[in-house]
Amino acid sequence: MAINIKNFIFPYNMKSKMIDFQDLEHVDGIAISSVSANLYDKKRDDLVMFYFRNGANYASVYTQSKIISENIKWNLNLKNRKIKALLVNTRNANAFTGKRGYLGLKEIAEELSINLSAKQKNDEEKPEKIKPNQILFGCTGTIGEKFPTEKIKKCIPELIEKIKYTQNKSIWMKAALGIMTTDLQPKLAMEECKIGNTNIKIYGVAKGSGMIFPNMATTLGYIFTDADLSSNILQKLLKKNIDTTFNAISCDGDTSTNDMVSIFSTSMTKHYTIKNFNDPRLKEFDEALHLVLLNLAKRVVADGEGSSKFITINVHNTKTLDDAKKIAFSIANSPLVKTAIAGEDPNWGRIIMAIGKADANINLNKLSIKFGSIKIIERGQLFSSYNEEEVLEYMRGEKIDVSIEIGMGKKNFTAYTMDLTKKYIEINADYRS
Amino acid sequence: MAINIKNFIFPYNMKSKMIDFQDLEHVDGIAISSVSANLYDKKRDDLVMFYFRNGANYASVYTQSKIISENIKWNLNLKNRKIKALLVNTRNANAFTGKRGYLGLKEIAEELSINLSAKQKNDEEKPEKIKPNQILFGCTGTIGEKFPTEKIKKCIPELIEKIKYTQNKSIWMKAALGIMTTDLQPKLAMEECKIGNTNIKIYGVAKGSGMIFPNMATTLGYIFTDADLSSNILQKLLKKNIDTTFNAISCDGDTSTNDMVSIFSTSMTKHYTIKNFNDPRLKEFDEALHLVLLNLAKRVVADGEGSSKFITINVHNTKTLDDAKKIAFSIANSPLVKTAIAGEDPNWGRIIMAIGKADANINLNKLSIKFGSIKIIERGQLFSSYNEEEVLEYMRGEKIDVSIEIGMGKKNFTAYTMDLTKKYIEINADYRS
Repeated sequence: MAINIKNFIFPYNMKSKMIDFQDLEHVDGIAISSVSANLYDKKRDDLVMFYFRNGANYASVYTQSKIISENIKWNLNLKNRKIKALLVNTRNANAFTGKRGYLGLKEIAEELSINLSAKQKNDEEKPEKIKPNQILFGCTGTIGEKFPTEKIKKCIPELIEKIKYTQNKSIWMKAALGIMTTDLQPKLAMEECKIGNTNIKIYGVAKGSGMIFPNMATTLGYIFTDADLSSNILQKLLKKNIDTTFNAISCDGDTSTNDMVSIFSTSMTKHYTIKNFNDPRLKEFDEALHLVLLNLAKRVVADGEGSSKFITINVHNTKTLDDAKKIAFSIANSPLVKTAIAGEDPNWGRIIMAIGKADANINLNKLSIKFGSIKIIERGQLFSSYNEEEVLEYMRGEKIDVSIEIGMGKKNFTAYTMDLTKKYIEINADYRS
Repeated sequence: MAINIKNFIFPYNMKSKMIDFQDLEHVDGIAISSVSANLYDKKRDDLVMFYFRNGANYASVYTQSKIISENIKWNLNLKNRKIKALLVNTRNANAFTGKRGYLGLKEIAEELSINLSAKQKNDEEKPEKIKPNQILFGCTGTIGEKFPTEKIKKCIPELIEKIKYTQNKSIWMKAALGIMTTDLQPKLAMEECKIGNTNIKIYGVAKGSGMIFPNMATTLGYIFTDADLSSNILQKLLKKNIDTTFNAISCDGDTSTNDMVSIFSTSMTKHYTIKNFNDPRLKEFDEALHLVLLNLAKRVVADGEGSSKFITINVHNTKTLDDAKKIAFSIANSPLVKTAIAGEDPNWGRIIMAIGKADANINLNKLSIKFGSIKIIERGQLFSSYNEEEVLEYMRGEKIDVSIEIGMGKKNFTAYTMDLTKKYIEINADYRS
């Protein structure tokens, strides 16, 4: 099947943190507005609204933590299949803020829905009254600090005023910058594909560079498409593709109270009606969505706090998928493996250690390990022509691929992570000050 | 019950790494010898033998890793209830060294048993022939490097020559130094107690400062007593006490292929015969053993690679013990919590995060958190007179106690860990060079 993927760009210079960006343009049905609500001491955009003037079907996956933020509670309480806006603030996670944090969101939703209704009355031929429960929230930042309800409410008029109905590269960039916390780089990705003969756009932004681990996975990720898909189909598409993308990355094994990935479809492009998740006409969309999610997830890892190397852990041929995941994440989360890679030390003994402690089905005599294409261990033995010089040279690169052959079955899993450097400690020992 | 505990000393200056030591003296039935087998580039003791001239009953607990070192395999294959010597080498873990690593141990055991038999013939009235399978091995160091069988064999005569039948403070210290790898400080502990009316000594040495996590727990720990206890009773005592000591510490969540804690009883002190593990006359010994194990385990954490603060995590009143452990280790292993503490930042939001991701039974409305005696969270709310200045002052200390009240049941667990600093990265990115 020929896929009409526009571009999957991910060249990233880990040292300079320079990254190539795709050119995101307009997606019908989405309006964006970014402002500063003065949530930081230093003035910067910290409040971003994605406004769907004709509404959007949507689906979300949330953190699996037992302690969830107030905005996740709010979102879970929404019964609507269609929403009108997604409002994202940074600096404050609205987690462990109790009833007051929740009521703050309610106040903001009420205020915003009144203002958006007025805006519709002004701009639209058939204005619709927008209700508070048509607003979804994303929050990220420090846990346990009083939620800045008043500051956010105060700048709603400015937020409305700055709504841009037509998007371009710089508006998307501004939005991606506006949702960042400790990120060094904004995260954007896009693909184009077809449903039937109709061109469809899938755009996405994300943020996150710490507290990143599966169980759902990460931080914030928002996908926008002009396709016309039901919330039910969106949910299935998101669930299917999250496991190998946002749930396949780990920066430090920590999971946030606020993790959230959502997909919104504006239904502005009219294509062959997809009634069923298994419709073969959905395959191209499915694959393009996977690429957008993977692109964003990889950008989160590449920007992982203090990272200097991007690490891919491929685990092949385990008995169960669970075994493959256990091994991949045992390696990806091992501080000893991650510091060795930071030190450009091909210390495969630590990889052995991480495989051993993973509590998965293994047989040493079947175990093989490669760094890039260089064989290290073959069937439980140090490779006969193992040449440490060659591996040392490989370790100097910015992209380290570790492949583990288990030889016990047919399941595979790939995890993405980064190395653990002094910079990580610096950033995290000093986050709030 | 009045316990005749001699001294439980553990004042540790985390910054200077200065530590107080107890004065270990002679224990009947133990001889010690430390030499350099030139396993390091720089000359230092790297081979230590604990020799039991009249044999010793013993019990061991080993790593739970699926990949175990060759010496652990050797030890597991020993069918003897009584052994004659424990030989510990550093620099090389003898892990992932295959058959050659195992056969190396066999050669060493043969050579050593011949030499020890000759020594007995010379020194003892009733010499006994010592067999290779009466020798236990401890190995620690780099994984996957060829085991230095010849170097070790070559210095067996020197090892025999240097045997000291009477121990004192400096001989114990030399032994503790000889088993160190990246440790900055030797680890020794002792208690005296009574079985019936008889005075009994319990001495111990340990090593370890990285790759430390439960599932058995850590590195190497060796306990010696002159009591007369069967291997069966020793095994039960060790198993009972390991969970709250060596299995309660975590430095980096990593588990070694070589972890091993053993207890040896020389039976040189004749006391009331203990036939049963439940004998009340064993209670004092049980408690003293717990103190020795805890003292050593705490010393391992305090010396944790790069640590600047000693952290105690107390989890109270969970529904199950498993829940208490999950929460304690989720906090103890969180890089975000550990870096915050390194930065002296009372970022309790990260503790909330770690509790949330632990997958344990919790109810936010019952959750309370204290740093030292300072209330932070009370029943799910920020404590009404919470004063960040006061907490900041507390965080400047070297000993940080975090107490979590879950209020769901009656189980408790305490875990010990240290902070995560740039120094950890330095040590581990540069371990082999």
